[in-house]
Amino acid sequence: MKEKIIELLNRADDYISGEEISKHLGVSRTAVWKVINHLREEGYEIESVTRKGYRLVSSPDILNEEELHYNLNTNVIGNKIISYDSVDSTNQQAKKLALEGAGEGTVVIAEEQTAGKGRRGKNWVSPPKTGIWMSIILRPDIMPENASMLTLVAGLAVCKAIREITSLEASIKWPNDIVVSGKKICGLLTEMNSEIDYVNFVVVGIGINVNIEEFPPELDKMATSLMIEGNQIYKRKRIINKTLEIFEVYYKKYLETEDLTNIIAEYNECCINIGRNVKVTSRSQNLKGIVKEVTRKGELIITDPQGEDIEITSGEVSIRGIYGYV
Amino acid sequence: MKEKIIELLNRADDYISGEEISKHLGVSRTAVWKVINHLREEGYEIESVTRKGYRLVSSPDILNEEELHYNLNTNVIGNKIISYDSVDSTNQQAKKLALEGAGEGTVVIAEEQTAGKGRRGKNWVSPPKTGIWMSIILRPDIMPENASMLTLVAGLAVCKAIREITSLEASIKWPNDIVVSGKKICGLLTEMNSEIDYVNFVVVGIGINVNIEEFPPELDKMATSLMIEGNQIYKRKRIINKTLEIFEVYYKKYLETEDLTNIIAEYNECCINIGRNVKVTSRSQNLKGIVKEVTRKGELIITDPQGEDIEITSGEVSIRGIYGYV
Repeated sequence: MKEKIIELLNRADDYISGEEISKHLGVSRTAVWKVINHLREEGYEIESVTRKGYRLVSSPDILNEEELHYNLNTNVIGNKIISYDSVDSTNQQAKKLALEGAGEGTVVIAEEQTAGKGRRGKNWVSPPKTGIWMSIILRPDIMPENASMLTLVAGLAVCKAIREITSLEASIKWPNDIVVSGKKICGLLTEMNSEIDYVNFVVVGIGINVNIEEFPPELDKMATSLMIEGNQIYKRKRIINKTLEIFEVYYKKYLETEDLTNIIAEYNECCINIGRNVKVTSRSQNLKGIVKEVTRKGELIITDPQGEDIEITSGEVSIRGIYGYV
Repeated sequence: MKEKIIELLNRADDYISGEEISKHLGVSRTAVWKVINHLREEGYEIESVTRKGYRLVSSPDILNEEELHYNLNTNVIGNKIISYDSVDSTNQQAKKLALEGAGEGTVVIAEEQTAGKGRRGKNWVSPPKTGIWMSIILRPDIMPENASMLTLVAGLAVCKAIREITSLEASIKWPNDIVVSGKKICGLLTEMNSEIDYVNFVVVGIGINVNIEEFPPELDKMATSLMIEGNQIYKRKRIINKTLEIFEVYYKKYLETEDLTNIIAEYNECCINIGRNVKVTSRSQNLKGIVKEVTRKGELIITDPQGEDIEITSGEVSIRGIYGYV
């Protein structure tokens, strides 16, 4: 009933009377009154005026399905949202749900991750109620080797969403970080479950540091948050919705060609690697050079000191001036 | 206690007295006697002679961990075996266990699959107690693009194991079938869970038709069993152990080079595609030609009617004379 009352309050242009709510839901006035009080306790600011009724002044930044669906303008991405107070990691939870059949576009989100993960099982700090910890389940009809590009698609969506909502100068650090002021503000972790030539599902994990006030000393030089950079508290809901909406647009464009052809120009505009001195450390090679571009297949092209162009598909990329690399 | 008594009976060269068993396990003679009777009900043939004790004459073809571990000579593959009476599919179960942390070499096996799966979610018939329905969990330190070769590694192991145990002329139909007399006797389904450049785990599913007496009419021309071909009942345990042992050897060889360099000669010897007229149907192309070889990267090389060699990495391959393709 709580969700339905939130919906009615959200939909009402102006005041909505307790009587109207109680009729609409077929419950007593007292029941409505109790829920309204409960919502106030949760942080909803609800004005009540005699003979007019209730009016929703503001909602708290709670990440439940109802709050997230409200104002979300997508067709597929987020058509189902599963929210938790606390999970080990949203990617882990999304993989389990996908194994059980969760469909394309399902979003798994949590107020807190107790064992958030970055690449290769690295720890990812995800304190409660201050960040966006979410995973999108996708079931694209693509070849497995093309799935890694979805990290770049999601990165572009997050970067654009942060720019739009906060006006901060966010950039993409290829392949899976978003940075502001040379520090990490978002990390992406794409995981795939596939057969040889068939993708069962992809999980795109997105972690955004939103209202984190400060980081522990060991992370302070590497990580930042929207709040630290923008000097204000941001509504996570708005960033989530914007990210999902933009992601849906780019995801469609990606599916048309099964690569980045339609969005690579925008990607390169947002990519902080371009033109920078980098060092690449991977299993197969270590090399230094200057980044030329990201290709429509998602590879990084680096011009080495001999002037030769080298194609990088994976590995750790350190950029001079970013994350303390000098 | 049942497992421990089976172990003692298996280990005893000759008779072992009830007293010895009861001392060894710290239980009463009556308790031992009860378990012995229970085992006889399950199909264990146990001789008992006054003043000598018990002797195991023969074991039923039950696929529990104890029976499978006994006589299994591997280091890693099958070091943990998880057996079920019935599961939806062993691959599905293995993927869940792997998500929860199951280690390299864990084998998941079931007497029956209620929703056995072939490639792309196709149905796989797996009646109770007559087949080998198992999945091997692997955690190789390889690049995701090299994981598909594990299907070929497993195929070679199954083919060799069937040849050794049954003397039937089994062959590999690239990439994921084993055939006898032009009909399918085994199917493989490799699934992977990965990040962009990191493999979380691989599940190699193996389904072998062992003692299936007959197939439904719609499968009759496509599928066969070891029993049909060899006119006898085979002990599944022996085939499982042999398969896991040979797989371990080839798997090691694969890991040394992260491709098939060390085993491709043997593979091509076993591969029924070689020299045959085939038709390939994939998302990107349809072509006919004669198969030249499988490469050390696991690709199929086909010489087309114009004499050009074409490299195939995936798709449905129909071989003239096999599975009713004329």
